[in-house]
Amino acid sequence: MKNTLLVPELRELIETGQIDALRAFCEDVHPATAAEMIGALSPSESWSALRHLDPLVRSDIFSHLEDETQTEMLSILSRKDAADILADMPPDDRADLFKLLPEERREDILPALAQAEREDIRRLASYEEGTAGSVMTSDYVMLPLELTAQQAIDRLREVAPDRETIYTAYIVDAKRRVQGFVSLKDLIVARRDARVGDIMHTDVICARVQDDQEDAARKIQKYDLLALPVVDAGDALVGIITHDDALDIITQEQTEDIEKLMAIAGAHEAGAYVKTSAWAHFKSRAVWLVILAFFGLISGFIVQSFEGLLQQFAILAVFMPMLADTGGNTGSQSATLVVRALALKEIGSSDIMRILWKELRVSLLLGLLLAVVAFGRVMAFGGGSSVPEGVALGTIGFAIALALGLQVVTSTLIGALLPLGAARLKLDPALVASPALTTVVDITGLLIFFSTAKFFVGL
Amino acid sequence: MKNTLLVPELRELIETGQIDALRAFCEDVHPATAAEMIGALSPSESWSALRHLDPLVRSDIFSHLEDETQTEMLSILSRKDAADILADMPPDDRADLFKLLPEERREDILPALAQAEREDIRRLASYEEGTAGSVMTSDYVMLPLELTAQQAIDRLREVAPDRETIYTAYIVDAKRRVQGFVSLKDLIVARRDARVGDIMHTDVICARVQDDQEDAARKIQKYDLLALPVVDAGDALVGIITHDDALDIITQEQTEDIEKLMAIAGAHEAGAYVKTSAWAHFKSRAVWLVILAFFGLISGFIVQSFEGLLQQFAILAVFMPMLADTGGNTGSQSATLVVRALALKEIGSSDIMRILWKELRVSLLLGLLLAVVAFGRVMAFGGGSSVPEGVALGTIGFAIALALGLQVVTSTLIGALLPLGAARLKLDPALVASPALTTVVDITGLLIFFSTAKFFVGL
Repeated sequence: MKNTLLVPELRELIETGQIDALRAFCEDVHPATAAEMIGALSPSESWSALRHLDPLVRSDIFSHLEDETQTEMLSILSRKDAADILADMPPDDRADLFKLLPEERREDILPALAQAEREDIRRLASYEEGTAGSVMTSDYVMLPLELTAQQAIDRLREVAPDRETIYTAYIVDAKRRVQGFVSLKDLIVARRDARVGDIMHTDVICARVQDDQEDAARKIQKYDLLALPVVDAGDALVGIITHDDALDIITQEQTEDIEKLMAIAGAHEAGAYVKTSAWAHFKSRAVWLVILAFFGLISGFIVQSFEGLLQQFAILAVFMPMLADTGGNTGSQSATLVVRALALKEIGSSDIMRILWKELRVSLLLGLLLAVVAFGRVMAFGGGSSVPEGVALGTIGFAIALALGLQVVTSTLIGALLPLGAARLKLDPALVASPALTTVVDITGLLIFFSTAKFFVGL
Repeated sequence: MKNTLLVPELRELIETGQIDALRAFCEDVHPATAAEMIGALSPSESWSALRHLDPLVRSDIFSHLEDETQTEMLSILSRKDAADILADMPPDDRADLFKLLPEERREDILPALAQAEREDIRRLASYEEGTAGSVMTSDYVMLPLELTAQQAIDRLREVAPDRETIYTAYIVDAKRRVQGFVSLKDLIVARRDARVGDIMHTDVICARVQDDQEDAARKIQKYDLLALPVVDAGDALVGIITHDDALDIITQEQTEDIEKLMAIAGAHEAGAYVKTSAWAHFKSRAVWLVILAFFGLISGFIVQSFEGLLQQFAILAVFMPMLADTGGNTGSQSATLVVRALALKEIGSSDIMRILWKELRVSLLLGLLLAVVAFGRVMAFGGGSSVPEGVALGTIGFAIALALGLQVVTSTLIGALLPLGAARLKLDPALVASPALTTVVDITGLLIFFSTAKFFVGL
């Protein structure tokens, strides 16, 4: 987010070279707030404001700028200035930014960084997007078993300025395997001469580098953690994911799920609506719409094959929209509940029978209710439609009501089954929800509708 | 969640009275894990397992049980045991549980609690659901200005066992107005004789008791906070919301948003799918379905008024499902993007013109693409349908393609406008999305479709 409120004032401070006032402004507010204000300036103006700040404050504010602003600013900086900023950034944010830079710029900046930082960036940037490895930071604290609580606190004090959190410290063995952890609270409360090895907690919850980032975030949520240690294939500690990352991951995954429910393809990034171009929006939405429109052909063929019936009973066309909408709505409702319950791990794909049984009961109630509504509608307003002689309006009303009831039951069950099936096949359940589902239940709905009608009017 | 894996082993430990083994089991694992195992037992068995534990561990595990298990267990306990458990629970969880108890049980337990706890429960339970006040806890730490860093650390050590977090402490004036805060990290890093008043941060971010809980959680996310102070109408500090609460709030709000998008009414509680009865599911889904079905009547009347046209051009009925689905899909996509961008505060309702302009460009591209698909469909497969003599298939194809293109543009714009309008009227934008939208664009779509067709075939 950018905040343009103070842009004129900031510009004036920069142009008149009031460095002290600029510094006071940036250091008195939260870095996220400073980033909103500074991000509203041009890249060169932003740098004029940031360059005079204390390096730690500067990197903190810089980390809070939007991705685009970060890359734009880096592109106008000298190699040294760019390397200075990167050196002080949190390792996870730094690796993320690095991945966004053009190849040549990366090659240009890397040699200006210290070797440890180069390796850290290369390592963190190597994990696949969406994994726990790709969101972890390497700024964690390790403590030896044999320290006393007081010595441990002294150690934490020393490393505090460089570390993202000193509230949880890990105890590892020679192969960096996590033996336990202590919180700063444990250390403060313990006797000063208590050994870290004696007060550490050994019930360590951790994630593996290749785990899904959402699963890692859900662990932080479930166990109320400040930080979750991440280990590699050899069980060695390689990073931590912090509580604030968990909030961002869950928000991002949520945006993804909602967009998949609505069949919007492509990269799902939080905060993307405004900065995504119309053409990119078009591409991400068009793919599925065209696929679905092709599936819509099947609905068309079904209607076409019942054209004779439709011409005799135009009243059927009157109820086609209600049938299609109701099927789509009931199917989407059950699909949404199942997708959400799967995402929150309330249910697994093995609970199929239990879920179908519940959805069956719900759908019978809904089907009955809507059938009554439809029957009432036919009897009250159906008189205006042309019905061939010899066929009672009640017969048609009953056929339509029955078809609608059947449609509600089948689309509710299909709505529950599609995401469960996708989960079984290790696909994302959200992908088969809403629009895809609407298209499927349209097809089943039209078949049910015309077959029932044909059966009752005896054609 | 319940974990039945160890139920037989736990039962045996309880039946054979192996208290030490039970205690070791419950104290060695994370309280959330212990709660999953113990929650799978019957209420009286759970109590047999919990009663022998250290009161703090017991309350910690108890707080992690599901709401239902908590209320069931409390209902079989003596007044004294119930009061003992409540006394050691985190104040926010305790107030939430209290609200779930039947009136008479509350009246029964309250007198057994100390006065401070009674008042704390009454106060926390008094805030309206969904507000920052309803999710805050009263377990925070305040420090006087004049303490030194070392004295402050000593103070934190003393109160640590009773407090949810000692990592952030607040400095308040005589009227409890927040003057600043210090983190335990600040205190550890500071010189021992530094005054709290000199090292405290004065850029305090806080929420008001009546603020929306999601806004409060988003502040914790934006500013990477461990805890957010909550103040009352007189600016006095009355509670804090912690980082783990923020995760739960955001998960709950997201479930709510998704369910509203799919028109599922009622209380939106995380973790509810499995424990909600079929009848309750029926009620929460039926309301909107019936309302939407009534709106479907309008679509029916439109079709009815064009029955003559439909009987002559049965090919129009063939394209009705595709028209309705595409309108619903494109409208839902733009509505979803706008609802999400509003929820994440990327855009406000005042950005209407900017959003409409973007959606207009996107929809023109989508409309053109889908019109071409529809025209191709008519020319390729339309020959099988009955078309009156004197009307060229190409004319009908053009009319259908144009109608579909117009439908895409209008439904995309309506999809963006409805949630923006709702936000303007201070309603929840998610309420007017998906199913409600589908019904609206069905009506506009049918009007566009038949009017365009009528115009082109010159009837």
